[in-house]
Amino acid sequence: MRFTSEQRLDGGVLEREFTLGEIPGILWTPASASAPAPLILLGHPGGLHKIRPRLVARARHSAEHGFASATIELPGSGDRPRSAVAEQARADVRRAVEAGEPVDEEIVDRLILPLVEKAVPEWQAALDALLSLPEIGGPVGYSGGVIAIGVRLAVVEPRISAAVLFAGSFVPRATFEEARQVTIPLHVLLQWDDEGNDRQAALDLFDAFGTKEKTLHANLGGHTGVPQFEGDPAAQFFTRHLS
Amino acid sequence: MRFTSEQRLDGGVLEREFTLGEIPGILWTPASASAPAPLILLGHPGGLHKIRPRLVARARHSAEHGFASATIELPGSGDRPRSAVAEQARADVRRAVEAGEPVDEEIVDRLILPLVEKAVPEWQAALDALLSLPEIGGPVGYSGGVIAIGVRLAVVEPRISAAVLFAGSFVPRATFEEARQVTIPLHVLLQWDDEGNDRQAALDLFDAFGTKEKTLHANLGGHTGVPQFEGDPAAQFFTRHLS
Repeated sequence: MRFTSEQRLDGGVLEREFTLGEIPGILWTPASASAPAPLILLGHPGGLHKIRPRLVARARHSAEHGFASATIELPGSGDRPRSAVAEQARADVRRAVEAGEPVDEEIVDRLILPLVEKAVPEWQAALDALLSLPEIGGPVGYSGGVIAIGVRLAVVEPRISAAVLFAGSFVPRATFEEARQVTIPLHVLLQWDDEGNDRQAALDLFDAFGTKEKTLHANLGGHTGVPQFEGDPAAQFFTRHLS
Repeated sequence: MRFTSEQRLDGGVLEREFTLGEIPGILWTPASASAPAPLILLGHPGGLHKIRPRLVARARHSAEHGFASATIELPGSGDRPRSAVAEQARADVRRAVEAGEPVDEEIVDRLILPLVEKAVPEWQAALDALLSLPEIGGPVGYSGGVIAIGVRLAVVEPRISAAVLFAGSFVPRATFEEARQVTIPLHVLLQWDDEGNDRQAALDLFDAFGTKEKTLHANLGGHTGVPQFEGDPAAQFFTRHLS
């Protein structure tokens, strides 16, 4: 991991860009950290530049609760090389949505499963690097982003102790099966009127999670309309499980 | 309204029992109230004696956020005269549940609709009396209890500005229609594995509410297992809308 830039944000949060091999990433650490800070991995839909203002807002909010935050670019997004398979699947999704048709399970599998296969080891490598920094301690939480990536990480990465998942992306069939293996506490956000999201699939996925502590917070509104007041229960969830 | 007893609880909350005609009730006011306190009406399933410890816990939590709380006994519960119709419906519910059969919509209507018809004017009369006390101001919230009572109050009582509803009781068919007329902000709690509750009906009811701001918080566990951490988002909801 190589740091490539460093700046203090208003309020004192330290923001550092880094690269991990070819993968760009960003680390935010709280202004005053006397002890190593617990870490939250910030998931996102891909495209760090575009999503950055929202990531910074989430990182600031986490820092107020004493958490460091970090993210890396997804495979095939932002400045990273495109995948022909994913681009084809994306075009197929667009075509279905524009035609007002449901998006075929087979297309979802082609879009999401290779992404999960590639992204998850990268987040694990980022975790190795981040946890070697003296200012970062455990435990680790995962928050948001492509839900299939969050589910896979929750199953395969024992260093992740709790996850806030956003039920706002396509769910491959295999992810419902994987969900049964999740045993860490989950806090799931659902936008009730999310245009691109199948509400029943989101509720079925919530039902499928094998964990003993799971909470669903659903709010009226579209994909990007998660109300600001949902930030506090999510932070309190991480405080309960990562502090 | 006639006060019949008065005591200070640990922490300073003033607890006063009262009667409103034949109806017993309890009022809790915060220890230090410089201005008239906003009021939360505490709904419950009926039977003040049995439910009292949980009501006191809710009233204390509300007092910490500056709210007064009040409740009255439901018709046909506690020391109030039984209704033959409701007792018959209750027996029919028991028979269905013991036989492992779904509870017929017609039985639910017989159990709940007369209760709503009788209880709602009583809560409104209690509100008249409570709001005439100098230590109680507006605005008013409603919290918990039989959901069909909460829905009717939200529709017919303009002094109620926000409601926390508990999706844990039978929902008569007519309540789904009434739900569309609700326009105040709602915060709905659902226990995902509530034995006596139809989860799909609860989700359908949430979907039906006509209000622009509605939030559903669902947690794993049975009817009485609402996690303690859900107290804070509910209090924050009332703080946003009643303060």
